[in-house]
Amino acid sequence: MIEKPQRLLVTVDVVIFTLRENDLNVLLVKRKYEPFINHWAIPGGFVNADESLEDAARRELEEETGVGDVYLEQLYTFGKVERDPRGRVVTVAYFALVPFTAVRGGSDASEARWWPVNDLPTLAFDHTDILAYAIKRLRYKLEYSAVGFQLLPEKFTLTELQQAYEIVLGEKLDKRNFRRKILEANIIEEAGMRREGEGRPARMYRFREDAVAEVKARRLFP
Amino acid sequence: MIEKPQRLLVTVDVVIFTLRENDLNVLLVKRKYEPFINHWAIPGGFVNADESLEDAARRELEEETGVGDVYLEQLYTFGKVERDPRGRVVTVAYFALVPFTAVRGGSDASEARWWPVNDLPTLAFDHTDILAYAIKRLRYKLEYSAVGFQLLPEKFTLTELQQAYEIVLGEKLDKRNFRRKILEANIIEEAGMRREGEGRPARMYRFREDAVAEVKARRLFP
Repeated sequence: MIEKPQRLLVTVDVVIFTLRENDLNVLLVKRKYEPFINHWAIPGGFVNADESLEDAARRELEEETGVGDVYLEQLYTFGKVERDPRGRVVTVAYFALVPFTAVRGGSDASEARWWPVNDLPTLAFDHTDILAYAIKRLRYKLEYSAVGFQLLPEKFTLTELQQAYEIVLGEKLDKRNFRRKILEANIIEEAGMRREGEGRPARMYRFREDAVAEVKARRLFP
Repeated sequence: MIEKPQRLLVTVDVVIFTLRENDLNVLLVKRKYEPFINHWAIPGGFVNADESLEDAARRELEEETGVGDVYLEQLYTFGKVERDPRGRVVTVAYFALVPFTAVRGGSDASEARWWPVNDLPTLAFDHTDILAYAIKRLRYKLEYSAVGFQLLPEKFTLTELQQAYEIVLGEKLDKRNFRRKILEANIIEEAGMRREGEGRPARMYRFREDAVAEVKARRLFP
């Protein structure tokens, strides 16, 4: 244990999701350097010795999107020996949810763009695995937590909520089942107003404050 | 991103749980060296350049317990700048569940012993935080997955299962609620036999194969 510990390169990679044009999108950057030059990759970079992992992830997120105060959660640490041809690199992966309207465009990479998760290019390194796991985690969390607060306006109808869920989950949901389950999960509450429109005014909802607080607490620490 | 990346020390720490004497226990080692000499700590060590994180964790686990083929799952990566007085050390924490009868005693540390999680000494580094999170994750997983397969014999009665759950969760459970929830969770099934004893023979159960496979798949990859 004590004998000559070896220092390793440590990176953070941030899988940044948004809802855009009725699709779940992920932000990818085109690599300017070898290895995997001109391949698309999850944005990320090396961790500086004087910043925490969380700070490094938030820095990368801000460099790419111009926004910092959004949902960010540590996903998993990937550390297979051969995952990077430059040598041993351990990467701590995060995922972020960003309201599309907040994104101001990146400054760091020469080329960054949103890709629908169902129509992705070939990715650099083991980023296909990392992204697949991020999607799995997001879908899983959506079903039991208020993580969707970042993807919807403050107040919404159950129909709007169902549409957002269907986009993220990539499948149509049965209206009655969806309503029963989402109300049972105790993560939304009535906002005390109705949206006027065609037909009967629709009841508006919002995410419960305590449910959002729980999600936010978890983003900073497990 | 590209400018002079700094190499960091990377360790794995393995929180090893077992059920012992009707208590949830965790294996701790007494540190032989500075920093925190003579303090108790979660067993762990530096990751070698030629081993994956998972391999390093399994190596530490085997060194401490003599067992390798048990439930091991990546927990979280802790990377605050000041968490180790030796300099910048990022640690990837894992948790393992070990049947107490399988443990053959460690060889690595001068002194290792089981501690009931409700009666812990002061721990080195940020290990109190890491352990608290490991307990939280274990309790959480117990409620919705078959992770308990590692803590019970192959076949068990619902009373035995409830006792194991009560020990891990640290609270008494209502018998009827427990039975309803555990059967609804679809992680156990009848084993087709009954245990003879005092009174009515008790129906025996086992964890469902698919539920255990799901847990095992997740231990190797998120």
